Amino acid sequence: MPKNKKGVILLSGGLDSATVLAIAQAQDYDMYALSVQYGQRHHHELSCAVTIAKKYNVVEHKIVEIDLRLFGGSALTANIDVPKHNTVADIGPDIPVTYVPARNTIFLSYALAYAETIGAFDLFIGVNALDYSGYPDCRPEFINAYENMANLAIAACADGSQKLKIHTPLLHLSKADIIAKGIELGIDYGLTTSCYDPNMEGHACGHCDSCLLRKKGFEENGLSDPIVYVE
Amino acid sequence: MPKNKKGVILLSGGLDSATVLAIAQAQDYDMYALSVQYGQRHHHELSCAVTIAKKYNVVEHKIVEIDLRLFGGSALTANIDVPKHNTVADIGPDIPVTYVPARNTIFLSYALAYAETIGAFDLFIGVNALDYSGYPDCRPEFINAYENMANLAIAACADGSQKLKIHTPLLHLSKADIIAKGIELGIDYGLTTSCYDPNMEGHACGHCDSCLLRKKGFEENGLSDPIVYVE
Repeated sequence: MPKNKKGVILLSGGLDSATVLAIAQAQDYDMYALSVQYGQRHHHELSCAVTIAKKYNVVEHKIVEIDLRLFGGSALTANIDVPKHNTVADIGPDIPVTYVPARNTIFLSYALAYAETIGAFDLFIGVNALDYSGYPDCRPEFINAYENMANLAIAACADGSQKLKIHTPLLHLSKADIIAKGIELGIDYGLTTSCYDPNMEGHACGHCDSCLLRKKGFEENGLSDPIVYVE
Repeated sequence: MPKNKKGVILLSGGLDSATVLAIAQAQDYDMYALSVQYGQRHHHELSCAVTIAKKYNVVEHKIVEIDLRLFGGSALTANIDVPKHNTVADIGPDIPVTYVPARNTIFLSYALAYAETIGAFDLFIGVNALDYSGYPDCRPEFINAYENMANLAIAACADGSQKLKIHTPLLHLSKADIIAKGIELGIDYGLTTSCYDPNMEGHACGHCDSCLLRKKGFEENGLSDPIVYVE
Protein backbone atom coordinates (compact mmCIF):
# COMPACT_ATOMS: atom_id res chain seq x y z
CA MET A 1 0.00 0.00 0.00
CA PRO A 2 1.60 3.28 -1.04
CA LYS A 3 1.97 6.00 1.56
CA ASN A 4 -0.17 8.99 0.75
CA LYS A 5 -0.06 11.19 3.84
CA LYS A 6 2.37 14.05 4.28
CA GLY A 7 3.34 15.16 7.76
CA VAL A 8 5.55 18.01 8.95
CA ILE A 9 7.55 17.50 12.14
CA LEU A 10 9.45 19.97 14.28
CA LEU A 11 12.63 17.97 14.71
CA SER A 12 14.92 19.37 17.39
CA GLY A 13 17.46 16.60 17.63
CA GLY A 14 16.12 15.72 21.06
CA LEU A 15 14.70 12.52 22.43
CA ASP A 16 11.07 13.60 22.22
CA SER A 17 10.90 14.70 18.59
CA ALA A 18 12.89 11.65 17.47
CA THR A 19 10.22 9.50 19.13
CA VAL A 20 7.42 11.50 17.48
CA LEU A 21 9.08 10.96 14.10
CA ALA A 22 9.07 7.19 14.63
CA ILE A 23 5.42 7.26 15.76
CA ALA A 24 4.33 9.27 12.71
CA GLN A 25 6.23 7.01 10.32
CA ALA A 26 4.67 3.95 11.99
CA GLN A 27 1.32 5.56 11.04
CA ASP A 28 2.43 5.69 7.39
CA TYR A 29 3.07 9.41 7.16
CA ASP A 30 5.70 10.60 4.70
CA MET A 31 7.60 12.95 6.94
CA TYR A 32 9.04 16.39 6.18
CA ALA A 33 11.28 17.66 8.97
CA LEU A 34 11.84 21.24 10.04
CA SER A 35 14.62 22.23 12.42
CA VAL A 36 15.32 25.68 13.73
CA GLN A 37 18.67 27.31 14.35
CA TYR A 38 17.57 30.07 16.69
CA GLY A 39 20.74 31.14 18.39
CA GLN A 40 20.39 28.48 21.08
CA ARG A 41 23.45 27.71 23.15
CA HIS A 42 22.85 24.00 22.74
CA HIS A 43 23.34 24.03 18.97
CA HIS A 44 24.73 20.51 19.18
CA GLU A 45 21.08 19.45 18.90
CA LEU A 46 20.97 20.66 15.28
CA SER A 47 23.69 18.25 14.22
CA CYS A 48 21.70 15.50 15.97
CA ALA A 49 18.60 16.59 14.00
CA VAL A 50 20.51 16.28 10.73
CA THR A 51 21.72 12.78 11.67
CA ILE A 52 18.26 11.64 12.74
CA ALA A 53 16.59 13.05 9.61
CA LYS A 54 19.03 11.11 7.40
CA LYS A 55 19.01 7.87 9.37
CA TYR A 56 15.20 7.69 9.50
CA ASN A 57 14.64 8.72 5.88
CA VAL A 58 12.57 11.86 6.07
CA VAL A 59 11.46 13.04 2.61
CA GLU A 60 13.02 16.47 3.12
CA HIS A 61 14.75 18.28 5.97
CA LYS A 62 14.66 22.06 6.07
CA ILE A 63 16.62 24.14 8.56
CA VAL A 64 15.36 27.62 9.29
CA GLU A 65 17.77 30.14 10.70
CA ILE A 66 16.19 32.73 12.94
CA ASP A 67 17.82 34.74 15.64
CA LEU A 68 15.87 34.90 18.86
CA ARG A 69 18.92 36.54 20.47
CA LEU A 70 17.48 39.71 18.93
CA PHE A 71 15.01 39.69 21.79
CA GLY A 72 16.95 37.78 24.47
CA GLY A 73 15.09 37.00 27.67
CA SER A 74 16.08 33.34 28.05
CA ALA A 75 18.97 31.32 29.43
CA LEU A 76 18.93 29.40 26.14
CA THR A 77 19.52 32.47 23.99
CA ALA A 78 21.04 35.13 26.25
CA ASN A 79 23.93 35.33 28.65
CA ILE A 80 22.04 33.86 31.61
CA ASP A 81 23.24 30.70 33.41
CA VAL A 82 21.30 27.50 32.83
CA PRO A 83 20.08 26.29 36.26
CA LYS A 84 21.64 23.05 37.53
CA HIS A 85 20.29 20.62 40.14
CA ASN A 86 21.11 17.23 41.57
CA THR A 87 17.76 15.48 41.13
CA VAL A 88 14.41 15.98 39.44
CA ALA A 89 12.92 16.76 42.86
CA ASP A 90 15.02 19.93 42.99
CA ILE A 91 13.32 21.40 39.91
CA GLY A 92 11.07 24.22 41.14
CA PRO A 93 7.40 24.75 40.24
CA ASP A 94 7.97 28.09 38.46
CA ILE A 95 8.55 28.68 34.77
CA PRO A 96 12.36 28.51 34.55
CA VAL A 97 14.77 30.94 32.87
CA THR A 98 15.28 28.40 30.09
CA TYR A 99 11.83 29.39 28.83
CA VAL A 100 12.21 31.17 25.45
CA PRO A 101 9.49 33.80 24.84
CA ALA A 102 6.99 32.55 22.24
CA ARG A 103 9.34 29.82 21.01
CA ASN A 104 6.80 27.13 20.18
CA THR A 105 4.47 29.77 18.72
CA ILE A 106 7.21 30.84 16.33
CA PHE A 107 8.34 27.28 15.52
CA LEU A 108 4.79 26.10 14.81
CA SER A 109 4.26 29.13 12.57
CA TYR A 110 7.18 28.07 10.40
CA ALA A 111 5.90 24.50 10.37
CA LEU A 112 2.52 25.85 9.26
CA ALA A 113 4.10 27.77 6.37
CA TYR A 114 6.06 24.70 5.37
CA ALA A 115 2.98 22.46 5.55
CA GLU A 116 0.94 24.79 3.39
CA THR A 117 3.58 25.02 0.68
CA ILE A 118 3.89 21.21 0.38
CA GLY A 119 0.18 20.48 0.78
CA ALA A 120 0.40 18.84 4.22
CA PHE A 121 -2.33 19.09 6.83
CA ASP A 122 -0.67 17.20 9.66
CA LEU A 123 1.85 18.81 11.98
CA PHE A 124 3.71 16.76 14.58
CA ILE A 125 5.34 18.21 17.68
CA GLY A 126 6.88 16.51 20.69
CA VAL A 127 5.33 18.59 23.45
CA ASN A 128 4.59 16.90 26.68
CA ALA A 129 2.48 17.96 29.63
CA LEU A 130 4.09 15.59 32.15
CA ASP A 131 7.78 15.49 33.06
CA TYR A 132 8.33 18.81 31.31
CA SER A 133 9.88 22.07 32.37
CA GLY A 134 6.74 24.11 33.07
CA TYR A 135 6.65 25.94 29.75
CA PRO A 136 3.21 27.40 28.98
CA ASP A 137 3.58 26.63 25.26
CA CYS A 138 3.70 22.87 25.93
CA ARG A 139 0.21 22.73 27.48
CA PRO A 140 -2.71 21.01 25.74
CA GLU A 141 -4.79 24.21 25.87
CA PHE A 142 -2.05 26.04 23.98
CA ILE A 143 -1.89 23.35 21.29
CA ASN A 144 -5.69 23.36 20.89
CA ALA A 145 -5.76 27.14 20.58
CA TYR A 146 -2.92 27.04 18.08
CA GLU A 147 -4.68 24.44 15.94
CA ASN A 148 -7.85 26.53 15.95
CA MET A 149 -5.91 29.64 14.91
CA ALA A 150 -3.96 27.76 12.21
CA ASN A 151 -7.15 26.60 10.53
CA LEU A 152 -8.20 30.24 10.16
CA ALA A 153 -4.75 31.45 9.11
CA ILE A 154 -3.91 29.58 5.95
CA ALA A 155 -5.42 29.72 2.48
CA ALA A 156 -5.43 25.92 2.21
CA CYS A 157 -8.03 25.76 5.02
CA ALA A 158 -9.80 29.06 4.35
CA ASP A 159 -12.89 27.53 2.76
CA GLY A 160 -13.24 24.92 5.47
CA SER A 161 -12.88 21.93 3.13
CA GLN A 162 -9.55 20.89 4.64
CA LYS A 163 -8.66 20.69 8.31
CA LEU A 164 -5.18 21.05 9.72
CA LYS A 165 -4.35 18.88 12.72
CA ILE A 166 -1.55 19.21 15.25
CA HIS A 167 -0.50 15.79 16.47
CA THR A 168 1.01 15.58 19.95
CA PRO A 169 1.46 11.87 20.58
CA LEU A 170 3.66 12.46 23.66
CA LEU A 171 1.34 14.93 25.36
CA HIS A 172 0.26 12.68 28.21
CA LEU A 173 3.25 10.34 28.39
CA SER A 174 5.93 10.38 31.05
CA LYS A 175 9.56 10.53 29.91
CA ALA A 176 9.83 6.83 30.81
CA ASP A 177 6.79 6.03 28.63
CA ILE A 178 8.26 8.03 25.74
CA ILE A 179 11.54 6.15 25.93
CA ALA A 180 9.77 2.79 26.14
CA LYS A 181 7.72 3.69 23.05
CA GLY A 182 10.80 4.80 21.10
CA ILE A 183 12.77 1.68 22.00
CA GLU A 184 9.82 -0.42 20.82
CA LEU A 185 9.89 1.47 17.49
CA GLY A 186 13.63 0.98 17.11
CA ILE A 187 14.88 4.52 17.77
CA ASP A 188 18.59 4.79 18.50
CA TYR A 189 18.60 7.32 21.33
CA GLY A 190 22.37 7.54 21.06
CA LEU A 191 21.73 9.86 18.09
CA THR A 192 19.69 12.28 20.20
CA THR A 193 20.58 14.97 22.70
CA SER A 194 18.62 16.67 25.48
CA CYS A 195 21.07 18.83 27.40
CA TYR A 196 20.51 22.61 27.57
CA ASP A 197 24.18 23.25 28.25
CA PRO A 198 26.43 20.65 26.58
CA ASN A 199 30.20 21.06 26.40
CA MET A 200 32.12 21.72 23.19
CA GLU A 201 32.05 18.05 22.20
CA GLY A 202 28.28 17.91 22.70
CA HIS A 203 28.53 15.92 25.94
CA ALA A 204 25.59 16.41 28.29
CA CYS A 205 25.99 18.32 31.59
CA GLY A 206 23.84 15.87 33.55
CA HIS A 207 22.40 18.54 35.84
CA CYS A 208 20.08 20.81 33.83
CA ASP A 209 16.34 20.12 34.03
CA SER A 210 16.40 18.43 30.66
CA CYS A 211 19.27 16.05 31.56
CA LEU A 212 17.67 15.17 34.90
CA LEU A 213 14.33 14.31 33.29
CA ARG A 214 16.04 12.24 30.59
CA LYS A 215 18.21 10.30 33.01
CA LYS A 216 15.20 9.54 35.22
CA GLY A 217 13.30 8.26 32.16
CA PHE A 218 16.04 5.79 31.27
CA GLU A 219 16.44 4.70 34.90
CA GLU A 220 12.71 3.99 35.21
CA ASN A 221 13.00 1.71 32.18
CA GLY A 222 15.99 -0.05 33.72
CA LEU A 223 18.07 1.10 30.75
CA SER A 224 21.34 2.96 30.48
CA ASP A 225 21.28 6.17 28.48
CA PRO A 226 23.50 5.69 25.40
CA ILE A 227 24.69 9.33 25.25
CA VAL A 228 27.83 10.67 26.92
CA TYR A 229 27.63 12.78 30.09
CA VAL A 230 30.43 15.09 31.23
CA GLU A 231 30.63 13.64 34.74
CA MET B 1 0.56 62.99 32.26
CA PRO B 2 3.41 60.55 31.70
CA LYS B 3 2.97 57.76 29.17
CA ASN B 4 2.99 54.37 30.81
CA LYS B 5 1.79 51.96 28.16
CA LYS B 6 4.07 49.97 25.90
CA GLY B 7 2.83 48.80 22.52
CA VAL B 8 4.47 46.66 19.84
CA ILE B 9 3.60 47.37 16.22
CA LEU B 10 4.29 45.39 13.08
CA LEU B 11 5.58 48.22 10.92
CA SER B 12 5.85 47.28 7.25
CA GLY B 13 6.56 50.68 5.76
CA GLY B 14 3.13 50.66 4.17
CA LEU B 15 0.25 53.07 4.47
CA ASP B 16 -1.77 50.93 6.85
CA SER B 17 0.82 50.28 9.53
CA ALA B 18 1.96 53.93 9.45
CA THR B 19 -1.62 54.89 10.22
CA VAL B 20 -1.86 52.35 13.03
CA LEU B 21 1.33 53.78 14.54
CA ALA B 22 -0.22 57.27 14.60
CA ILE B 23 -3.45 55.93 16.12
CA ALA B 24 -1.57 54.06 18.88
CA GLN B 25 0.59 57.07 19.69
CA ALA B 26 -2.53 59.26 19.84
CA GLN B 27 -3.72 56.81 22.55
CA ASP B 28 -0.52 57.48 24.54
CA TYR B 29 1.24 54.21 23.84
CA ASP B 30 5.03 54.20 23.82
CA MET B 31 5.60 52.31 20.62
CA TYR B 32 8.16 49.60 19.83
CA ALA B 33 8.30 48.79 16.13
CA LEU B 34 9.10 45.45 14.53
CA SER B 35 9.78 45.10 10.82
CA VAL B 36 10.48 41.91 8.97
CA GLN B 37 12.90 41.34 6.12
CA TYR B 38 11.47 38.10 4.77
CA GLY B 39 12.89 37.89 1.27
CA GLN B 40 10.05 39.95 -0.18
CA ARG B 41 10.60 41.39 -3.64
CA HIS B 42 9.25 44.74 -2.48
CA HIS B 43 12.07 45.32 0.02
CA HIS B 44 11.80 49.07 -0.63
CA GLU B 45 9.13 48.96 2.10
CA LEU B 46 11.79 48.22 4.72
CA SER B 47 13.61 51.47 4.04
CA CYS B 48 10.25 53.23 4.36
CA ALA B 49 9.73 51.48 7.72
CA VAL B 50 13.08 52.77 8.96
CA THR B 51 12.22 56.32 7.90
CA ILE B 52 8.75 56.18 9.49
CA ALA B 53 10.10 54.71 12.75
CA LYS B 54 12.62 57.57 13.04
CA LYS B 55 10.30 60.36 11.98
CA TYR B 56 7.53 59.33 14.38
CA ASN B 57 9.84 58.62 17.32
CA VAL B 58 9.26 55.01 18.18
CA VAL B 59 11.13 53.97 21.33
CA GLU B 60 12.94 51.15 19.53
CA HIS B 61 12.85 49.64 16.05
CA LYS B 62 13.90 46.02 15.57
CA ILE B 63 14.27 44.40 12.18
CA VAL B 64 14.01 40.63 12.03
CA GLU B 65 15.53 38.82 9.10
CA ILE B 66 13.79 35.63 8.14
CA ASP B 67 13.79 33.93 4.81
CA LEU B 68 10.38 32.78 3.65
CA ARG B 69 11.94 31.98 0.27
CA LEU B 70 12.96 28.74 1.98
CA PHE B 71 9.37 27.63 1.46
CA GLY B 72 8.39 29.71 -1.60
CA GLY B 73 4.76 29.49 -2.67
CA SER B 74 4.05 33.21 -3.16
CA ALA B 75 4.53 35.85 -5.84
CA LEU B 76 6.04 38.04 -3.12
CA THR B 77 8.79 35.59 -2.25
CA ALA B 78 9.21 33.27 -5.25
CA ASN B 79 9.72 33.71 -8.96
CA ILE B 80 6.02 34.15 -9.78
CA ASP B 81 4.69 37.29 -11.53
CA VAL B 82 2.72 39.76 -9.44
CA PRO B 83 -0.75 40.10 -11.07
CA LYS B 84 -1.50 43.49 -12.64
CA HIS B 85 -4.89 45.05 -13.42
CA ASN B 86 -6.32 48.33 -14.62
CA THR B 87 -8.90 48.99 -11.91
CA VAL B 88 -9.94 47.68 -8.50
CA ALA B 89 -12.97 46.06 -10.19
CA ASP B 90 -10.60 43.70 -12.04
CA ILE B 91 -9.31 42.17 -8.80
CA GLY B 92 -10.79 38.66 -8.59
CA PRO B 93 -12.56 37.12 -5.56
CA ASP B 94 -9.98 34.37 -5.03
CA ILE B 95 -6.99 34.44 -2.72
CA PRO B 96 -4.27 35.81 -5.02
CA VAL B 97 -0.75 34.48 -5.62
CA THR B 98 0.63 37.36 -3.56
CA TYR B 99 -0.62 35.49 -0.49
CA VAL B 100 2.40 34.34 1.58
CA PRO B 101 1.74 31.09 3.49
CA ALA B 102 1.33 31.79 7.21
CA ARG B 103 2.91 35.24 6.94
CA ASN B 104 0.84 37.08 9.53
CA THR B 105 1.01 34.06 11.82
CA ILE B 106 4.81 34.19 11.69
CA PHE B 107 5.00 37.99 11.99
CA LEU B 108 2.64 38.09 14.99
CA SER B 109 4.69 35.33 16.64
CA TYR B 110 7.79 37.50 16.49
CA ALA B 111 5.80 40.47 17.77
CA LEU B 112 4.62 38.28 20.65
CA ALA B 113 8.20 37.31 21.53
CA TYR B 114 9.24 40.95 21.37
CA ALA B 115 6.31 42.06 23.52
CA GLU B 116 7.03 39.49 26.19
CA THR B 117 10.70 40.43 26.47
CA ILE B 118 9.92 44.15 26.94
CA GLY B 119 6.87 43.63 29.17
CA ALA B 120 4.26 44.84 26.65
CA PHE B 121 0.75 43.42 26.46
CA ASP B 122 -0.54 45.38 23.49
CA LEU B 123 0.19 44.36 19.89
CA PHE B 124 -0.86 46.57 16.99
CA ILE B 125 -1.32 45.34 13.43
CA GLY B 126 -2.76 47.08 10.38
CA VAL B 127 -4.97 44.29 9.08
CA ASN B 128 -8.12 45.27 7.34
CA ALA B 129 -11.17 43.22 6.40
CA LEU B 130 -12.42 45.67 3.72
CA ASP B 131 -10.50 46.79 0.65
CA TYR B 132 -7.95 44.05 1.21
CA SER B 133 -6.56 41.34 -0.98
CA GLY B 134 -8.53 38.36 0.29
CA TYR B 135 -5.86 37.01 2.62
CA PRO B 136 -7.28 34.66 5.27
CA ASP B 137 -4.85 35.94 7.90
CA CYS B 138 -6.37 39.43 7.78
CA ARG B 139 -9.83 38.30 8.91
CA PRO B 140 -11.26 39.21 12.33
CA GLU B 141 -11.77 35.53 13.20
CA PHE B 142 -8.07 34.89 12.61
CA ILE B 143 -7.06 37.80 14.84
CA ASN B 144 -9.42 36.65 17.61
CA ALA B 145 -8.08 33.10 17.43
CA TYR B 146 -4.51 34.40 17.47
CA GLU B 147 -5.15 36.54 20.54
CA ASN B 148 -6.70 33.59 22.34
CA MET B 149 -3.70 31.39 21.48
CA ALA B 150 -1.18 34.09 22.44
CA ASN B 151 -2.65 34.39 25.92
CA LEU B 152 -1.98 30.68 26.45
CA ALA B 153 1.46 30.75 24.83
CA ILE B 154 3.53 33.15 26.88
CA ALA B 155 4.78 32.97 30.43
CA ALA B 156 3.76 36.57 31.10
CA CYS B 157 0.09 35.58 30.71
CA ALA B 158 0.34 31.99 31.98
CA ASP B 159 -1.23 32.66 35.38
CA GLY B 160 -4.08 34.72 33.88
CA SER B 161 -3.23 37.91 35.76
CA GLN B 162 -2.24 39.75 32.58
CA LYS B 163 -4.08 39.75 29.28
CA LEU B 164 -2.49 40.34 25.91
CA LYS B 165 -4.55 42.28 23.39
CA ILE B 166 -4.16 42.53 19.62
CA HIS B 167 -5.32 45.95 18.44
CA THR B 168 -6.61 46.19 14.87
CA PRO B 169 -7.86 49.76 14.56
CA LEU B 170 -8.18 49.51 10.75
CA LEU B 171 -10.12 46.26 10.68
CA HIS B 172 -13.43 47.69 9.53
CA LEU B 173 -12.22 50.82 7.72
CA SER B 174 -12.10 51.31 3.97
CA LYS B 175 -8.80 52.42 2.45
CA ALA B 176 -10.37 55.89 2.04
CA ASP B 177 -11.29 55.96 5.75
CA ILE B 178 -7.76 54.88 6.72
CA ILE B 179 -6.20 57.65 4.66
CA ALA B 180 -8.61 60.25 6.06
CA LYS B 181 -7.72 59.13 9.61
CA GLY B 182 -3.98 59.28 8.91
CA ILE B 183 -4.18 62.74 7.34
CA GLU B 184 -6.11 63.93 10.41
CA LEU B 185 -3.30 62.57 12.62
CA GLY B 186 -0.62 64.25 10.52
CA ILE B 187 0.92 61.22 8.77
CA ASP B 188 3.10 62.05 5.78
CA TYR B 189 2.05 59.32 3.36
CA GLY B 190 4.89 60.33 1.06
CA LEU B 191 7.11 58.30 3.43
CA THR B 192 5.09 55.12 2.90
CA THR B 193 4.90 52.56 0.11
CA SER B 194 2.27 50.02 -0.88
CA CYS B 195 3.39 48.52 -4.19
CA TYR B 196 4.07 44.77 -4.40
CA ASP B 197 6.37 45.23 -7.38
CA PRO B 198 8.18 48.59 -7.30
CA ASN B 199 11.05 49.40 -9.67
CA MET B 200 14.67 49.76 -8.58
CA GLU B 201 14.12 53.32 -7.36
CA GLY B 202 11.13 52.21 -5.26
CA HIS B 203 8.58 53.78 -7.61
CA ALA B 204 5.17 52.10 -7.51
CA CYS B 205 3.90 50.03 -10.46
CA GLY B 206 0.37 51.43 -10.24
CA HIS B 207 -1.28 48.18 -11.33
CA CYS B 208 -0.86 45.58 -8.60
CA ASP B 209 -3.79 45.04 -6.23
CA SER B 210 -2.08 47.05 -3.53
CA CYS B 211 -1.43 50.08 -5.79
CA LEU B 212 -4.99 50.02 -7.14
CA LEU B 213 -6.53 49.96 -3.65
CA ARG B 214 -4.24 52.75 -2.49
CA LYS B 215 -4.93 55.00 -5.49
CA LYS B 216 -8.68 54.50 -5.09
CA GLY B 217 -8.42 55.48 -1.41
CA PHE B 218 -6.70 58.77 -2.23
CA GLU B 219 -9.14 59.49 -5.07
CA GLU B 220 -12.13 58.95 -2.79
CA ASN B 221 -10.66 61.54 -0.43
CA GLY B 222 -10.15 63.97 -3.33
CA LEU B 223 -6.41 63.88 -2.59
CA SER B 224 -3.40 63.19 -4.75
CA ASP B 225 -1.13 60.39 -3.60
CA PRO B 226 2.26 61.91 -2.69
CA ILE B 227 4.30 58.87 -3.79
CA VAL B 228 5.80 58.39 -7.26
CA TYR B 229 4.29 55.95 -9.73
CA VAL B 230 6.19 54.52 -12.70
CA GLU B 231 3.60 55.54 -15.28
